[in-house]
Amino acid sequence: MPVEWAGSGPGLLVTIDRGGGAGLRTQLEEQLRTAIRAGRLAANEPLPSSRELARALGLSRGLVQDCYAQLQAEGYLTSRPGSATRVAAGVVSPHEGPAPEKSSAERVRHPVADFQHGVPDLGLAPREEWAWAVQKTLRTAPNAAFDYGEAVGVRALREVLASYLGRVRAVAAGPDDLIVCAGMQQALGLVVGALAAAGVRSLAFEDPGSGANVTDLTAAAGIAAVPVTVDESGLDVGALARSGAGAVFVTPAHQWPTGVVLTGPRRQALIAWSRATGGVIVEDDYDAEFRYDRDPVGSLQGLAPDCVISLGTVSKSLAPALRLGWIVAPPRLHPALARGKWRADRGSPGLDQLALAALLESGRYDRHLRRVRAEYAARRETLIAALHRHAPRLAVTGLAAGFHAILHLPPGTDDAAAVERAVIEAAAARGVGLYGMAKMHAQAVPPKPRLIVGFGNTSRSAIEAGIEAIADLLNPPLRRG
Amino acid sequence: MPVEWAGSGPGLLVTIDRGGGAGLRTQLEEQLRTAIRAGRLAANEPLPSSRELARALGLSRGLVQDCYAQLQAEGYLTSRPGSATRVAAGVVSPHEGPAPEKSSAERVRHPVADFQHGVPDLGLAPREEWAWAVQKTLRTAPNAAFDYGEAVGVRALREVLASYLGRVRAVAAGPDDLIVCAGMQQALGLVVGALAAAGVRSLAFEDPGSGANVTDLTAAAGIAAVPVTVDESGLDVGALARSGAGAVFVTPAHQWPTGVVLTGPRRQALIAWSRATGGVIVEDDYDAEFRYDRDPVGSLQGLAPDCVISLGTVSKSLAPALRLGWIVAPPRLHPALARGKWRADRGSPGLDQLALAALLESGRYDRHLRRVRAEYAARRETLIAALHRHAPRLAVTGLAAGFHAILHLPPGTDDAAAVERAVIEAAAARGVGLYGMAKMHAQAVPPKPRLIVGFGNTSRSAIEAGIEAIADLLNPPLRRG
Repeated sequence: MPVEWAGSGPGLLVTIDRGGGAGLRTQLEEQLRTAIRAGRLAANEPLPSSRELARALGLSRGLVQDCYAQLQAEGYLTSRPGSATRVAAGVVSPHEGPAPEKSSAERVRHPVADFQHGVPDLGLAPREEWAWAVQKTLRTAPNAAFDYGEAVGVRALREVLASYLGRVRAVAAGPDDLIVCAGMQQALGLVVGALAAAGVRSLAFEDPGSGANVTDLTAAAGIAAVPVTVDESGLDVGALARSGAGAVFVTPAHQWPTGVVLTGPRRQALIAWSRATGGVIVEDDYDAEFRYDRDPVGSLQGLAPDCVISLGTVSKSLAPALRLGWIVAPPRLHPALARGKWRADRGSPGLDQLALAALLESGRYDRHLRRVRAEYAARRETLIAALHRHAPRLAVTGLAAGFHAILHLPPGTDDAAAVERAVIEAAAARGVGLYGMAKMHAQAVPPKPRLIVGFGNTSRSAIEAGIEAIADLLNPPLRRG
Repeated sequence: MPVEWAGSGPGLLVTIDRGGGAGLRTQLEEQLRTAIRAGRLAANEPLPSSRELARALGLSRGLVQDCYAQLQAEGYLTSRPGSATRVAAGVVSPHEGPAPEKSSAERVRHPVADFQHGVPDLGLAPREEWAWAVQKTLRTAPNAAFDYGEAVGVRALREVLASYLGRVRAVAAGPDDLIVCAGMQQALGLVVGALAAAGVRSLAFEDPGSGANVTDLTAAAGIAAVPVTVDESGLDVGALARSGAGAVFVTPAHQWPTGVVLTGPRRQALIAWSRATGGVIVEDDYDAEFRYDRDPVGSLQGLAPDCVISLGTVSKSLAPALRLGWIVAPPRLHPALARGKWRADRGSPGLDQLALAALLESGRYDRHLRRVRAEYAARRETLIAALHRHAPRLAVTGLAAGFHAILHLPPGTDDAAAVERAVIEAAAARGVGLYGMAKMHAQAVPPKPRLIVGFGNTSRSAIEAGIEAIADLLNPPLRRG
């Protein structure tokens, strides 16, 4: 007969089953771990004392103490003398399924600083603004807004989005060129499907880049994926032409992960390639709204709307949990994408779309972006200053935009992947989470050891403390004369 | 140079472009039609007078009057002497992409009554309850709730959903058996993909039924779709066994569209088929929460959790625009479905999931269901009474659950599809929207002429008026002795 303990709000229920297969401590540990990962136990929330919980569940106090100690050791809980045991801050739910950019080993907690990438500061998510927008939608939307909408997205959103993208990203598109979708993953999946339907047999991707993710989707669609090198000017268009690919997936505004911005001449060359071969350019504009040193570079799409599919998302600007993104497509590819979206899910949630339209239209989206851009700019400055102070000889690149930098490690005697691994492991032992670039390369052994240092979801004090703690691992050795 | 008129709130903008290809009246008509369909001009909203609008846009007043008259003729606008021209009530946004159950001809307005099916009453959508749930989520969710969540769905929702489905639908499942997804379309797509990956080569579907939709998805996945007859006890399990299919898509609680409930012996036979052949049963539990004559029949899944994938959605109970549904799957099929969901979109929107969890947990979901079920029960009674009064000799079936009935038309001398068409056309001429069952059949000529009469989104007064207006079309002729 299971014994239950329901504490800390309605979301948490611990159930201990004495007839079950797993041991009692394992059951308790598992459930607390899951509750913390899933956010049902929030950061800094106090847990009941071991005595209370033991009594509630009919367990021995020693067992509960052991369980708390274990979860403390794993970084899920914190405890200070004379204070309740609390949930540690910053435990993030693990992503399910293939997540090529993070191994499970990298997901363990890093108490000093975690330079994870790909996630904005979740504490900056616009809770009040979103609440306002949803309220407004529910108060004013016509009944028809509760029906299945158009699969390509609610017209009102497509209209304000087209005008927003025109203004901010120099995208040349009207509402009929847009397809609203569930973030970048679905956008890319729909594009791969439409390219396959259009007879494209191979899709090139940037190397280093999101190859693993692209390959997963192209394999499912039965088309080939070919890596094309990125250098300090961005994608090597000559190599692209030689690859014979019928389409290419690029990140021109801020190459993922090198952070290189595709140069003007390369943009021209890429469009010339498209015009000459009929090749389709798929532009991932994932974090282009965050440019620090100058105005953001306009989208490629604006230069050549007939050649480019442009993909965007609110995952970086608002929050990944909203699962809203968009595709801007040339008319010849739009119908296949619209059919794909209908087949996938008949359209993204209409009320969320109307709420996003209200945010954009009211100016709240812009205001939110200005606010968070200022915060990210300050973190970027903190990172630059900390690196300058603690690791002055380290080469740093990719900081023009977005939420991450590339640190170029001293080569060492082992291969590049091994050098990255050694630094990551040594940093982890000091409580600092670092992430290598080896996995972003198509070949097994990357040319150079590099780290991707995310600062989107890392506080300024953690950035400072983290870099200080690992500076000696990063600094190239002084050459002896 | 385009001239713009922004009226009726921020959502509506009419742009007249004198340099454009389309004529001025066409431009104005198109934009008003689209705005009404998309709900940007809400039902009963007054339009500016033709004089005002003509002045704002620099058009002649006659042109605006003609445009209003045209849209009135098409049913988009209404006008009474001495009153402003207003937006007609009940214009529903057309669904994009393949919508096999409705031809575009059937989408024209029916001023007396529209017996469309598949849509609940959008006026009953729980605006306040959803607003409450979203507010609560935004106020209380931890920061991690704004991140990418688990692809299979937010754990808190899977927990309350598993317990809800156990209580209400006798589903035997824990949170780890569930996958939250974007409504029935995505659920079926993911299932077809997982079945294909598991080596299933052919999927049986009910005839009549959702064959067109199933076939669209199976074709994309490269597996065959085979029709299996439905009789008055539900799916013909003997015919299923003879078909050699490796899986079957069924609607046991309320067969779509006949309304037949799969009998107890047939349920046993279906499970025996699954156990004997390893065939997978895919149960679509789409409107099972609406049963009127007795307690709802429990899900098939609860009888045989190892054989059955069960699919559900809030499209009928709350609103299609929420795009939330779920899959309950046996452990052997769960990983492929989870991978498919990750690949499709990395998970449904986390905040919406938490809001649904809050609705379920607070009892508001149950209270809403009780309220709308009472309303639908009253409409069903109105329909039964109206048919009894105006068409007493007509055979009516399928009324045990859900939002639609089947009317069995007198055979006539033409084939069944032609008989249906004739009645539908005659009714349309009287302002009543009817929908035939011919398209739900796998073969070109269905065995019998039948109508699917939806009452989910049709008011009681419209039901009464609509049936009265067309009764003579439905009544079988009195046999002369």
